[in-house]
Amino acid sequence: MKNIDKITKLERVRGTQDIFPNLSLIYQKVYDICIKILTKNNYQFVILPTLEYEKLFINSLGLSTDIVNKEMYSFFDKKNRKIVLRPEGTASFTRLICQNKLLTQNNKKFFYWSNMFRYERPQKGRHREFWQLGVEMLGVNNIWADYQIISLICEILYNLEIKDFTFCFNYLGNKDIQEKYKEELKKIINKDKICNNCKYRLQHNFLRILDCLICKNSQIFPEYKDFWTKKDKDYISSLEKLLTKFKIPFYFDQTLVRGLDYYDGLVWEVKLKTDTKELLGGGRYNQLYKNIGNVNMPAIGFAIGIERLINNLPSSFSIFLKKIDIFFFILENEYFEKLLEWKKDLNNKLIIEYNLEIQKKEILNTYIKNLNPKFLVFLKKKENKKLLIKDLKNNKIYEVNEIKLIEWLNTNF
Amino acid sequence: MKNIDKITKLERVRGTQDIFPNLSLIYQKVYDICIKILTKNNYQFVILPTLEYEKLFINSLGLSTDIVNKEMYSFFDKKNRKIVLRPEGTASFTRLICQNKLLTQNNKKFFYWSNMFRYERPQKGRHREFWQLGVEMLGVNNIWADYQIISLICEILYNLEIKDFTFCFNYLGNKDIQEKYKEELKKIINKDKICNNCKYRLQHNFLRILDCLICKNSQIFPEYKDFWTKKDKDYISSLEKLLTKFKIPFYFDQTLVRGLDYYDGLVWEVKLKTDTKELLGGGRYNQLYKNIGNVNMPAIGFAIGIERLINNLPSSFSIFLKKIDIFFFILENEYFEKLLEWKKDLNNKLIIEYNLEIQKKEILNTYIKNLNPKFLVFLKKKENKKLLIKDLKNNKIYEVNEIKLIEWLNTNF
Repeated sequence: MKNIDKITKLERVRGTQDIFPNLSLIYQKVYDICIKILTKNNYQFVILPTLEYEKLFINSLGLSTDIVNKEMYSFFDKKNRKIVLRPEGTASFTRLICQNKLLTQNNKKFFYWSNMFRYERPQKGRHREFWQLGVEMLGVNNIWADYQIISLICEILYNLEIKDFTFCFNYLGNKDIQEKYKEELKKIINKDKICNNCKYRLQHNFLRILDCLICKNSQIFPEYKDFWTKKDKDYISSLEKLLTKFKIPFYFDQTLVRGLDYYDGLVWEVKLKTDTKELLGGGRYNQLYKNIGNVNMPAIGFAIGIERLINNLPSSFSIFLKKIDIFFFILENEYFEKLLEWKKDLNNKLIIEYNLEIQKKEILNTYIKNLNPKFLVFLKKKENKKLLIKDLKNNKIYEVNEIKLIEWLNTNF
Repeated sequence: MKNIDKITKLERVRGTQDIFPNLSLIYQKVYDICIKILTKNNYQFVILPTLEYEKLFINSLGLSTDIVNKEMYSFFDKKNRKIVLRPEGTASFTRLICQNKLLTQNNKKFFYWSNMFRYERPQKGRHREFWQLGVEMLGVNNIWADYQIISLICEILYNLEIKDFTFCFNYLGNKDIQEKYKEELKKIINKDKICNNCKYRLQHNFLRILDCLICKNSQIFPEYKDFWTKKDKDYISSLEKLLTKFKIPFYFDQTLVRGLDYYDGLVWEVKLKTDTKELLGGGRYNQLYKNIGNVNMPAIGFAIGIERLINNLPSSFSIFLKKIDIFFFILENEYFEKLLEWKKDLNNKLIIEYNLEIQKKEILNTYIKNLNPKFLVFLKKKENKKLLIKDLKNNKIYEVNEIKLIEWLNTNF
């Protein structure tokens, strides 16, 4: 552990990220693509507050989940209220919807693009502050709603050029079924044969035993499907048919539980061949609105971890190329002010750049080369009183009278 | 003060905001417009971490400023390090640039769109979590850099349809001049005649006396311009000429100091006729990189408060109208799956919507009316086996054979 006094002014908080070009430009492009698809599908943008009272998450995520139990950034404010930096979006979103009484509006499809905070051990691709796209659809509890959400995920991933993914589903059933499942799991588990971690889980966070890679192999767990009602089975069978028909790759994993208390019904993760960890997760939470806002409101949603998404973009995915039309290379002082005047008459659609001080040519040459402008205008009077213009794209050179420069550029572009 | 036990699950943290439609759509549009202009001007996007070590702000903003002194959200992490939620962006940005050694790259123009946290008394238009657009330009210390930043502000405001603004400038000079000014101010101030708040300020945060609306009228303050060097005066005179020439409204206020330690040289606020508080503030901070990263790097920048900006948008500023091309009104169960098949062949550019369950017509009518689609397709077989299509824009009705529906829509749109 680092001595606190040794933290310098120049140090980023452990586990957080500085996101700058080119990485930040990838975030920007991923954001743009996601927002375009969500807007096209009539999802509406919301901005969640970063802070919530701790109570919200204890009630909704469950006191026994890792997030609430170990990973929340929490502190007391000056009035001694326990505040947390939100560790996930759904509980916060549900509070927002209920508190502001937004349940009567007809369009109940929303999304947020927000940073989340979890005090975890920082690892490759896992940060204490990370970004999530959260999508929430309220109001309808049937296969068509579920399928719309699933196909929305596909649309987003295809547009991000991610193709090699598979849905891993489970169906937890309602709270009644979940209780019965837990009882059976408790009965079946051989307490002597589970690992030490799972012995702890058995006391505190029962279902997490299903996630244990060690015990998975030594134990036979009961399967949710043995508890499904006739209606549940019909639903799953219809869903399987629909997914097959529309060529959405999937399989069922009876040990998938997603680790948050609020899920019921369908849950899923999307996995890639290239990554052992899931790319995104989601599911139904038909009881959450009852729990938080005391209203009946079925809901389904998912969250994509942006860092993991970006780590798994194919190499074909590239950031938007910076497009500079004209670079004005100012070589004499008088042109700084002249250029400002000229700009007013230049076609506003042209993207231009210019140097702000006269520097060594070599320094600026590198800069200009990176910007890759189509035209390079040298603002220095030649002996014949004309200005030199290089068409870098077509490798041509022009000489234009200063008074005609803007007219010439507007015409020749 | 509210009893902590009485905080319900349904309560937003005091001073924070829930931002949902239509307000969230205004945030989205303002964001889109700002990003478009900044990108056009070759500013690059960065994402700052929300958390910083407290040390950073104490060193850069100054221990005596209100922000550091009273308004920071701070807490100890599990390793006993003092963490703060960033109260402003420039110090954090400077740390990011220095820590990641980004000073050698040629393009040194950046921006961030971030939430900031200040534990202030919540008031109308003032929140404990609020949004800022921050813009930073490094590397050049001259009038052309300053003017580019000023004209960038104008471009942003014009594009947001905000026209009635004025720049209020002051010029603080370098640290030497600032020290001399302070000495003179100390000498001149009549300690018996200043208000009680200012008596406190005199001890702790000297320059803030200039902000005092009470003492402003009872005291004669020294003026910065009396301390300017010949070079400073020449600069100001050139800047005034340039601003006048390009019709940028401005005036000088010798009491404007901006209240953060890091400013030197030019500082400004932009004010509106409709609001007594400033819309944005900025200035030069040529010593900040020395202070934080021990490098020489001139810098200038500004920050726009998004909440204040949105409060001051003209009524002509409207959110993007939701454009729905076709609403499929499903009235018979068989059409849920059929529509999913049809969608594949429908022109992908068309924006469509459909109901996910069969509901009372009255409920859906309101929804459809709000969406205002151009075409409304009734998915219910008529006796003649055809489907009914309403062209709501031209008030026409068509009947189309089901097999021909998608072809018909693709053609008639």
